[in-house]
Amino acid sequence: MNRREPLGIAVIGTGRMGADHVRRIDRVISGARVAAVVDIDGERAKAVAAGVDGCTAHTDAAEAMASDAVDAVLIASSGPAHEEALLAAFARDLPVLCEKPLTPDAASALRVVEAEQALGHRRVQVGFMRRYDTEYVRLKALLGSGQLGRPLMLHNRHRNVASPPFFTSSMLISDSVAHEVDATRWLLGHEITAVTVLRPAPSAGAPDGLRDPQFVVLETDGGALSDVEIFVNCGFGYQVQAEAVCERGTARIGDGHQLVTNMAGRWGGTIAQDWTERFAQAYDDEVRAWVDATRRGEVTGPSTWDGYAAAAVCEAGVRAMEEGGRVRVDLAQRPPLYA
Amino acid sequence: MNRREPLGIAVIGTGRMGADHVRRIDRVISGARVAAVVDIDGERAKAVAAGVDGCTAHTDAAEAMASDAVDAVLIASSGPAHEEALLAAFARDLPVLCEKPLTPDAASALRVVEAEQALGHRRVQVGFMRRYDTEYVRLKALLGSGQLGRPLMLHNRHRNVASPPFFTSSMLISDSVAHEVDATRWLLGHEITAVTVLRPAPSAGAPDGLRDPQFVVLETDGGALSDVEIFVNCGFGYQVQAEAVCERGTARIGDGHQLVTNMAGRWGGTIAQDWTERFAQAYDDEVRAWVDATRRGEVTGPSTWDGYAAAAVCEAGVRAMEEGGRVRVDLAQRPPLYA
Amino acid sequence: MNRREPLGIAVIGTGRMGADHVRRIDRVISGARVAAVVDIDGERAKAVAAGVDGCTAHTDAAEAMASDAVDAVLIASSGPAHEEALLAAFARDLPVLCEKPLTPDAASALRVVEAEQALGHRRVQVGFMRRYDTEYVRLKALLGSGQLGRPLMLHNRHRNVASPPFFTSSMLISDSVAHEVDATRWLLGHEITAVTVLRPAPSAGAPDGLRDPQFVVLETDGGALSDVEIFVNCGFGYQVQAEAVCERGTARIGDGHQLVTNMAGRWGGTIAQDWTERFAQAYDDEVRAWVDATRRGEVTGPSTWDGYAAAAVCEAGVRAMEEGGRVRVDLAQRPPLYA
Amino acid sequence: MNRREPLGIAVIGTGRMGADHVRRIDRVISGARVAAVVDIDGERAKAVAAGVDGCTAHTDAAEAMASDAVDAVLIASSGPAHEEALLAAFARDLPVLCEKPLTPDAASALRVVEAEQALGHRRVQVGFMRRYDTEYVRLKALLGSGQLGRPLMLHNRHRNVASPPFFTSSMLISDSVAHEVDATRWLLGHEITAVTVLRPAPSAGAPDGLRDPQFVVLETDGGALSDVEIFVNCGFGYQVQAEAVCERGTARIGDGHQLVTNMAGRWGGTIAQDWTERFAQAYDDEVRAWVDATRRGEVTGPSTWDGYAAAAVCEAGVRAMEEGGRVRVDLAQRPPLYA
Repeated sequence: MNRREPLGIAVIGTGRMGADHVRRIDRVISGARVAAVVDIDGERAKAVAAGVDGCTAHTDAAEAMASDAVDAVLIASSGPAHEEALLAAFARDLPVLCEKPLTPDAASALRVVEAEQALGHRRVQVGFMRRYDTEYVRLKALLGSGQLGRPLMLHNRHRNVASPPFFTSSMLISDSVAHEVDATRWLLGHEITAVTVLRPAPSAGAPDGLRDPQFVVLETDGGALSDVEIFVNCGFGYQVQAEAVCERGTARIGDGHQLVTNMAGRWGGTIAQDWTERFAQAYDDEVRAWVDATRRGEVTGPSTWDGYAAAAVCEAGVRAMEEGGRVRVDLAQRPPLYA
Repeated sequence: MNRREPLGIAVIGTGRMGADHVRRIDRVISGARVAAVVDIDGERAKAVAAGVDGCTAHTDAAEAMASDAVDAVLIASSGPAHEEALLAAFARDLPVLCEKPLTPDAASALRVVEAEQALGHRRVQVGFMRRYDTEYVRLKALLGSGQLGRPLMLHNRHRNVASPPFFTSSMLISDSVAHEVDATRWLLGHEITAVTVLRPAPSAGAPDGLRDPQFVVLETDGGALSDVEIFVNCGFGYQVQAEAVCERGTARIGDGHQLVTNMAGRWGGTIAQDWTERFAQAYDDEVRAWVDATRRGEVTGPSTWDGYAAAAVCEAGVRAMEEGGRVRVDLAQRPPLYA
Repeated sequence: MNRREPLGIAVIGTGRMGADHVRRIDRVISGARVAAVVDIDGERAKAVAAGVDGCTAHTDAAEAMASDAVDAVLIASSGPAHEEALLAAFARDLPVLCEKPLTPDAASALRVVEAEQALGHRRVQVGFMRRYDTEYVRLKALLGSGQLGRPLMLHNRHRNVASPPFFTSSMLISDSVAHEVDATRWLLGHEITAVTVLRPAPSAGAPDGLRDPQFVVLETDGGALSDVEIFVNCGFGYQVQAEAVCERGTARIGDGHQLVTNMAGRWGGTIAQDWTERFAQAYDDEVRAWVDATRRGEVTGPSTWDGYAAAAVCEAGVRAMEEGGRVRVDLAQRPPLYA
Repeated sequence: MNRREPLGIAVIGTGRMGADHVRRIDRVISGARVAAVVDIDGERAKAVAAGVDGCTAHTDAAEAMASDAVDAVLIASSGPAHEEALLAAFARDLPVLCEKPLTPDAASALRVVEAEQALGHRRVQVGFMRRYDTEYVRLKALLGSGQLGRPLMLHNRHRNVASPPFFTSSMLISDSVAHEVDATRWLLGHEITAVTVLRPAPSAGAPDGLRDPQFVVLETDGGALSDVEIFVNCGFGYQVQAEAVCERGTARIGDGHQLVTNMAGRWGGTIAQDWTERFAQAYDDEVRAWVDATRRGEVTGPSTWDGYAAAAVCEAGVRAMEEGGRVRVDLAQRPPLYA
């Protein structure tokens, strides 16, 4: 049974990522509201709560979860704080969206696995958000369809413009390649059995002492290889690319061209079959813009004048089509209201 | 001042387009709710209203607009019904999102323009939704930046797989090219002064008697040309493409590659600079999937097991990076809960 | 029966184009040699002839054609000089490659047609060299295959960085669009029945008084339309593009991606099936580089050292493949000869 | 000093590769002729020689090299026969183009290096023909320019539709990856210091017992990594791709799009600046087609009628441009000669 009232969410952690989730739940996502925010920095929590209707501010996660207004928990605090927050949510049997990493190391992660098992049902969705990216979703669907045969290799590229000051050589693996670790497991449906890391001489563009780039090869229990170029100071842009090499073809994402395949003597992609696919986002953005402007008491976007001008041009166009030749368009005087 | 309560919207017309807008407002867009639906077919209106919490069904638009729960109106009925609904909304000074066309002909459209002027302020946003498409928005921004110089020509392609049974030769202009008419006016900031339509021999794939494809050339008061290939039975897919040819370069959209420019001896596009740009949609979809599943009482997506496995692989990876060579990954036994 | 001796060619006109043809016949094309060059500027003719073994210089075309060493004629003089040279070649029944235009106007061109008819057999190949471009050849083959159905429209783009000082508005048609006129006739196999020219306001980048760009629409006796954007001062590069829109799909060339089609829900191109296709040019260039260097008394390109180093690495690679793990490569000392 | 007479070449080996070189020297490359062919299969040698004017057939390489007509040697026999042929050429101090591999193993290759040193000058060009491929040449030039900074990694893909029956797992390295070994050394200007080979589970498309695909990582003395996917039964096509990852950007070849770079926030490639670049091959092919047809006694390609029709259309076009509106084209009757 679907509940009808909006879901009341407690957001734990109001740093960059947490604040972005607050904005998303408040302004973008239908069916949910931010009921509480939690931060060890109480002032920051209060500042964020002040921008959201009916949102309370807390410094203690368990206290926030105790509120009747809280139906679910989004954990966006720093990694070492995750375990405690997860266990607190388990204590109240609340559903959790937990930003990656689940916890910073395998031992603590295994403790969380065991705690959830003790509950007897799943409560946690981990924030491996690539599984929700349109291109990854299409790649996964194509691999699952069997059209290309069994996957043999996965070539991954992960490039950032520049790493933040606190970034260490280990974090290239545990923070960045962590995404490809999950993507490899998810796309192939294999577990990873071994890891090799090769290191070219560091780029002159990398901070002193940082081993950047690195080249990682993952082996899986399904006999596949997944190689990852991780380069967090590439300077030119943010790029996440993957090419699955299968028995009968390859499929590549991340070139900004959706999904490009090599198959049976041809390279290329699919063409949308109608406007619901091609312009889905435009329709959402159009209505969102109208709702947002209306709530602000404004009117924006194409005006009745634009509607009139289109009608006048189309009338002339129909005549030109029927009669041949060039047809002049005569518009009324444009009123100042639409200047 | 922003209002805090969700906007109550009356949706007029519950055909394919209207029903899609109801779904959008109910399930996708934050800050609004469907307060009323209107259809001359009362049963259809009731069926749609039944699926939305607190939504009333009506056969009369004015009656719906009279409800206190209605703050704004979305008109998605057939074109000939628009004028009456618009005037009813003006009578109550309600904000309107009106699907294209504003009205079916220039004379009635001009009456709406005059009625809105009589109100003394804009109330209508017309549904030219291409203005909200990411690629069109980027093209408009690039033209506005002046980087390419003044636009001289616009080449447009508009292709549908097949036209519906009721489609006439005139509708290729008034229904399809209408989009390019608005896009031309909006992108260039010019009014259109003349129209020429050229017609090749119809495609064998077009229904008997339909003049498809057609080739339309629009001239503007800014001295630009905008040509449109309209081909509504192309058979292979839905494609909307535009290339602006300017004094110092060209820019093309609709190849599925965002915005590709020719400029100063180079062709190409831009690379995202960080994950907020590249994965914006993935974050929205991730949280939306979690909210929707939670409201259904389900848990989906990456599990704590996935979080644990990633942590275990990353630990091995960090060792491989530090020590060199190949490092085995040893996972715990996978619990049945995550099978 | 094939002749075995090289063909002796008289090149008429030694300007930029003529001199380039002399180089081509002398250095690139097998089976022919430049036997004579002709230019009204006798000094220029002599200078060109001096660089070619056994080549004579002339100021009179008929005199050159009278030589026993001349088997065929390549006309690369200015357009107005073509008719006289063609008739002189006809007088001796010599095969001719005549640069475009055949002659500068329709009346003189018709006289040449009639003169060749009087000979009773074809003697002339006109220099519409797009018919020999790989991409155009592939597009022609695809259209001929019938896979896409009947062609309905052809969209052409023809852009130059900048026009030479002597270029007039008429020359955009007679000099530049002339290529698309032939390409349209050849690709479609239709004759052209009508021409319309539309002109946007000239680009600020065009020389004063030059109507640049122009937009030309050709109609054919097969019911097709061919539109041409001609823009000879586009500033950014040289681009020649064409898209054929057919009943069941479209095919585009000139994006530097060989031939890209839209067909049955997919866009894309073909993949080479073996190295003879992918590396044909590389093999030709490799042997040409070796022959040229050897004739100069030099040795260039990959050395025996390169051959040895590859062998040593491959030996290590085979061991690494068979034994697993990382295998060091031990090279001999590199001799100074290969420094 | 350049020699003027064509170079007389002895081609050793007349199998698939050797026969193709004979055709190339005889029909495509200017300035050289096939003076002799050698094959241990005397009948095959004679059959090939019969198709070439003035070419003698031999079963002994040294005998062929002794001929006064032979100025240079092209070795296209099987690998194990190379060493003897090379030493025979050294004995006569003849220039050699030797197909890859130089010899089948490092020890014999080193003997050849030493023998050439004993001559005191280079005589051999090894057939690593990728160094002559336009895309590789452009990539090498870009790397050399320093624009992208120092190269850190090279990602290579080498895919064949299917391997020949005699192919072994070792040959994936020594026959196929050998190309990437040379390309890596040449592009980077580094020697290779270590090799690692990783093997996914073989593809179901690979012949029984063949370890296909393989994944090879080369390390260089310049601190770079070069990884190679070798997949000789990929089924879908022949693909050779390389991406150089440098300190300030990346450059990729082999997608059929010449050279595509990522640099400073933009991806893309260069646009030709004039027709000499865009249509160089078309001009060569046009003149080659004319020479070949003329030697066969034929006339092909665009006719005087095509020249006339273009002139007539252009005249109408110039009028349409000057006067505005649509101008009809009136052609003369097409003579049967041009039917």
